[in-house]
Amino acid sequence: MSTIRALTTEEQEKLIDLSLEARDNSYSPYSKFRVGAALLTEDGVWIKGCNVENASYGAAICAERTAYVKALSEGHSKFIALGVSTDQVVPVSPCGICRQFISEFGPKDLPVYMITPNREYKLVTLNDLLPHSFSREEAGKFLL
Amino acid sequence: MSTIRALTTEEQEKLIDLSLEARDNSYSPYSKFRVGAALLTEDGVWIKGCNVENASYGAAICAERTAYVKALSEGHSKFIALGVSTDQVVPVSPCGICRQFISEFGPKDLPVYMITPNREYKLVTLNDLLPHSFSREEAGKFLL
Amino acid sequence: MSTIRALTTEEQEKLIDLSLEARDNSYSPYSKFRVGAALLTEDGVWIKGCNVENASYGAAICAERTAYVKALSEGHSKFIALGVSTDQVVPVSPCGICRQFISEFGPKDLPVYMITPNREYKLVTLNDLLPHSFSREEAGKFLL
Amino acid sequence: MSTIRALTTEEQEKLIDLSLEARDNSYSPYSKFRVGAALLTEDGVWIKGCNVENASYGAAICAERTAYVKALSEGHSKFIALGVSTDQVVPVSPCGICRQFISEFGPKDLPVYMITPNREYKLVTLNDLLPHSFSREEAGKFLL
Ligand SMILES: [Zn+2]
Ligand SMILES: [Zn+2]
Ligand SMILES: [Zn+2]
Ligand SMILES: [Zn+2]
Repeated sequence: MSTIRALTTEEQEKLIDLSLEARDNSYSPYSKFRVGAALLTEDGVWIKGCNVENASYGAAICAERTAYVKALSEGHSKFIALGVSTDQVVPVSPCGICRQFISEFGPKDLPVYMITPNREYKLVTLNDLLPHSFSREEAGKFLL
Repeated sequence: MSTIRALTTEEQEKLIDLSLEARDNSYSPYSKFRVGAALLTEDGVWIKGCNVENASYGAAICAERTAYVKALSEGHSKFIALGVSTDQVVPVSPCGICRQFISEFGPKDLPVYMITPNREYKLVTLNDLLPHSFSREEAGKFLL
Repeated sequence: MSTIRALTTEEQEKLIDLSLEARDNSYSPYSKFRVGAALLTEDGVWIKGCNVENASYGAAICAERTAYVKALSEGHSKFIALGVSTDQVVPVSPCGICRQFISEFGPKDLPVYMITPNREYKLVTLNDLLPHSFSREEAGKFLL
Repeated sequence: MSTIRALTTEEQEKLIDLSLEARDNSYSPYSKFRVGAALLTEDGVWIKGCNVENASYGAAICAERTAYVKALSEGHSKFIALGVSTDQVVPVSPCGICRQFISEFGPKDLPVYMITPNREYKLVTLNDLLPHSFSREEAGKFLL
């Protein structure tokens, strides 16, 4: 049973637009792999994120996490939908780091749109991306 | 169709033993959450890993990744099975960062044992943990 | 020789204000260690960041990096000053991950204010925090 | 005042040898930037590490951290010297992430050798690399 409302057609179009636009600020001189993300918060705010790489590759932050920390730092912590796009002709899915980061805030049925430059998309849920998710609460809740 | 051989009963017992032992070297003063990992490589070498935390939480490296970098730095890059254990009475699954890290080396049907202190386990494959996995090759292979 | 202009007294006060305010959105259920950051960009925009932790500690993103990815994702990539504050009575310095992340964008003499809740601060430069900095350009520039 | 003993000439030579050898197992298909590390522990054990990259750049683990988690997972937590080498003709310094990771274990005057393929090196201490270091203990010790 879904706990989250579906996007309207207009919202879907806006998610696609913003996710594609967000690529423009990508800082990816090492991979040349531009990624954009768009995030709709429960209170109706739209947030754009891009990937930011570093000379030390391990310090890179993906577009999805950029969008999330932006939202959280502005006081938005409930989410309706996430869109991710690249310059590839096929949908590209979020990496495991981002799946872990996003799952902290849920919900499990958050719709994640993987969007191509020609506005096609593949739609999955957060739970599809991170089944058997790791959370300290679940791990610890049987203790004591 | 499986591309990987199953563990023998003896190997399973050893995976459980080593994974539980590996917790002893955990450096986890911040979370107090000890994790151990055991890894069997294709050439028959056993590797133990533990989590190593840091005052800056983002620098933490999980037990699974410790086991993997150990193996790789010794020249082992093909894997037969991974075991993970904690002090919790329920099986705890690898985090998304580790799923991403592990998926670089495959195979997709790598068995991952999530082991409890009383030697029970839940068995899944890497693909169960990271479906729709992100890899640059897949993303890029339709280009040009 | 400095390549960056000094902050006016008003700007310093605003940096302190915003950095302290930014703590309010900290998501730090694991460490209970709230951190806020404020960033002034060359084009006069002020950005606030906070730390965002995760059940998998290694996925945590610090306040400073949150501020930076926010700025970059909005098209601001030149910086005048960074302020960081916590709830501690002594100034707390940025972690090495953040120093690495920040150093990608420079300048080396970027002023970094480490601010306490009673508005005292310790002032250093980025170069003070990350001397002998690692950058792929420097490493590679003698090649060929 | 130094709290750590100096390396003998033989030990220096071995540190250089192992650090250079360690590059051979580098997994760096994305950057093509091979890094090797060698670590001497207080109980006389030598450890080699290499960098291990990932399709999601942020999951990369540097050679220095690989060496450290190997050592720690084998029960060695006190260190005498660290050597780092690349394929560059100039010494390359550890990134900020590694400086942060290493500083958890100290000592502050740990000698860090940055080694070139022709066996030249630049020698600094950990404190030279991460002055004003961030540690939760220092931050918190004035509280209460
Ligand atoms: Zn990602
Ligand atoms: Zn993990
Ligand atoms: Zn930091
Ligand atoms: Zn490093």
